[in-house]
Amino acid sequence: MATQKYKRIPGGVCGVTGVTAAGLHCGMKANNEPDLALVASEAECNTAAFYTTNRLQGAHISVFKNRLRISRNNAMALLVNAKVANCSTGEQGVRDSNVLCNRVAAQLGVPAEQTLHASTGVIGRRLPMDKITAALPALCAALSKSGGEDAARAIMTTDAAPKSLCIQIGSGKGAYRIGGMAKGAGMIHPNMATMLAFVFTDAAISARALNPIARRVMNKTFNCISVDNDMSPNDTFAVFANGLSRVRIGPGGAPVEEFEDALECLCAELSRQMVLYGEGVTKVVTIEVERARTPAQARTMAMAIADSQLVKTAIFGNDPNWGRILSAACSCGADIDPARATLTIDGQTVFARGEPVSYRRRIMQGKEVHIRLDADNGQASAQRWTGDLSIEYVKINAEYTT
Amino acid sequence: MATQKYKRIPGGVCGVTGVTAAGLHCGMKANNEPDLALVASEAECNTAAFYTTNRLQGAHISVFKNRLRISRNNAMALLVNAKVANCSTGEQGVRDSNVLCNRVAAQLGVPAEQTLHASTGVIGRRLPMDKITAALPALCAALSKSGGEDAARAIMTTDAAPKSLCIQIGSGKGAYRIGGMAKGAGMIHPNMATMLAFVFTDAAISARALNPIARRVMNKTFNCISVDNDMSPNDTFAVFANGLSRVRIGPGGAPVEEFEDALECLCAELSRQMVLYGEGVTKVVTIEVERARTPAQARTMAMAIADSQLVKTAIFGNDPNWGRILSAACSCGADIDPARATLTIDGQTVFARGEPVSYRRRIMQGKEVHIRLDADNGQASAQRWTGDLSIEYVKINAEYTT
Repeated sequence: MATQKYKRIPGGVCGVTGVTAAGLHCGMKANNEPDLALVASEAECNTAAFYTTNRLQGAHISVFKNRLRISRNNAMALLVNAKVANCSTGEQGVRDSNVLCNRVAAQLGVPAEQTLHASTGVIGRRLPMDKITAALPALCAALSKSGGEDAARAIMTTDAAPKSLCIQIGSGKGAYRIGGMAKGAGMIHPNMATMLAFVFTDAAISARALNPIARRVMNKTFNCISVDNDMSPNDTFAVFANGLSRVRIGPGGAPVEEFEDALECLCAELSRQMVLYGEGVTKVVTIEVERARTPAQARTMAMAIADSQLVKTAIFGNDPNWGRILSAACSCGADIDPARATLTIDGQTVFARGEPVSYRRRIMQGKEVHIRLDADNGQASAQRWTGDLSIEYVKINAEYTT
Repeated sequence: MATQKYKRIPGGVCGVTGVTAAGLHCGMKANNEPDLALVASEAECNTAAFYTTNRLQGAHISVFKNRLRISRNNAMALLVNAKVANCSTGEQGVRDSNVLCNRVAAQLGVPAEQTLHASTGVIGRRLPMDKITAALPALCAALSKSGGEDAARAIMTTDAAPKSLCIQIGSGKGAYRIGGMAKGAGMIHPNMATMLAFVFTDAAISARALNPIARRVMNKTFNCISVDNDMSPNDTFAVFANGLSRVRIGPGGAPVEEFEDALECLCAELSRQMVLYGEGVTKVVTIEVERARTPAQARTMAMAIADSQLVKTAIFGNDPNWGRILSAACSCGADIDPARATLTIDGQTVFARGEPVSYRRRIMQGKEVHIRLDADNGQASAQRWTGDLSIEYVKINAEYTT
């Protein structure tokens, strides 16, 4: 794990100074599973947020954007519900999201414009406002330093496990922490951010400085994963920095590079867990494309391999069907000459410069699969993570009813 | 069926005057299933051929192209094998394909440059030359007017049924015939031609006149289907016209429009059968996008819907999950405003101008599913055909071993 560079601390988002969380069941999920999460910060957070590029967007996204615009990117509280996406619900969906934000703000005594709402679940269904509003007093009262896991569990839909993590960075200027939680199981093909990922830090950094760092990290982590090449309309990634560690990031303070690296490590691990716990996923696949002509071509080829149903079903079947991998990379329009390409699976070369190479059969058997394509056509490289395509994936998505 | 306009006649490609065919088992497929096909014409055929745009191409494709170049688009015999794609086999693959063409030419007594070879199957495996060459004398001897079905069966890989059809067009200038056979089950996402489709006609038309007609037809039929959005490296579509009906197409002869329409009807039905008999397909889905801003955007949205794993698994589950359909159309970069869009499934409006509409639940239950998206944003439209994504698809492709 890349995050092994940094000290892991318990609590998920609550590992961060001044952050409390809660998760409870308000009546949307079956089996009394938590379905409503709240995260709050004692101090205002400078915030950087990114949203799906799908033209279809959840109603919460316009509310989220609007409040951050009014607050000049300051936030103190975040409500998240699972089960209902509040997407394609028209103006009513926007009104519903605003009502929830305002209720939370009033109950916590924080400014309304600093209270945000995100949602995930089935498209086209209205939020059950009575259930959610009835649960808000208990949810606000439950905020605590031990609520991180409940919150991470509450934002799950078909995720096989909650995704929650906190690390501590001990810089020469004192220690600071970054904690995050994420949700994503299907409809994972991010092109801006992925499903839901919320990261809190007690480092002190302005929203203006935070934004480009968070964007670079997002492009190297959440935007590099694919489960099923369907892009969610509700994707949101936000980083909240409350400054309570009193460790300032930047000149005279802790190094920006270290902060960015730590944030990347945290987001990389949340991304990897999204794939690992993706719908029906039995194997995590890392795809590296090297020596491509341009960075865009490297990314396109890596994604073409990651998205190929035939590659993914072969991996599910433990079958090193390298022809499908090569075919996917060669069909995406990138400038690749198969006569120069070399393909390696789990460290074994299976195809070199236009011809198959004999290899030991026991590759692609493990829980982790590693595919490397050397295009021998330039200097650019790209990496992607994906999962296999299993019978369970089809079952989940054939049965996940409207 | 669109082909009901025209009289169906038996025999597949052999329904065409002067065309004979054969199919037999040479030892590649299990269970003595035919795996080697030969089609021959008594007279030279003016030929139009189109190939995959995948950068990875089967060795037979360079041989096919080269021979047609030398013969100035004249062909008399076509050998096709299933099971082994002869792709990614380097120079040896090219030599193998040439050897087979030359052997067939010698045995049939036709010019070598007028003898073509196509192959389909697993990528990266060499043709079993001994088995194939040993079978060639029997194959050539078996050519007959009743061999069309055997040939269509021999080119199948995981296809659930052979695809073979012949129609007769009774023009005022006399009758002529068009017969075709096709192969395609997975890796169906054509971008030039699809898997293998070979059409013969006894109409008289020059290769120069035939080419643009065949290209237009291909773009409206084979290029409109998708099974799993993986593009095969071996796709080839060719039309062979031997002129033996003595019905000339064009000024003074039978109308070009009628010929083009009949060819389109035939290719549309072969395309539809490819989806119907696609890997694990339980439902054939027709997707129509209307009033899009540009034809390219209409096509992109139709294909985004056709390719969405989540749409396809929902259809498999008989679930009218229209949110997934709308989300797919809105995520492909096309200029669509969901607040203006209307979505209809099996004739029922489920979403109109930004808001869900209540509908009768018993839609999407049949073997045929019809999806129509009205973007209300322009004049362009597009149509696509796809299948659902079933548990059987995953099983077939996880077990279809290298």
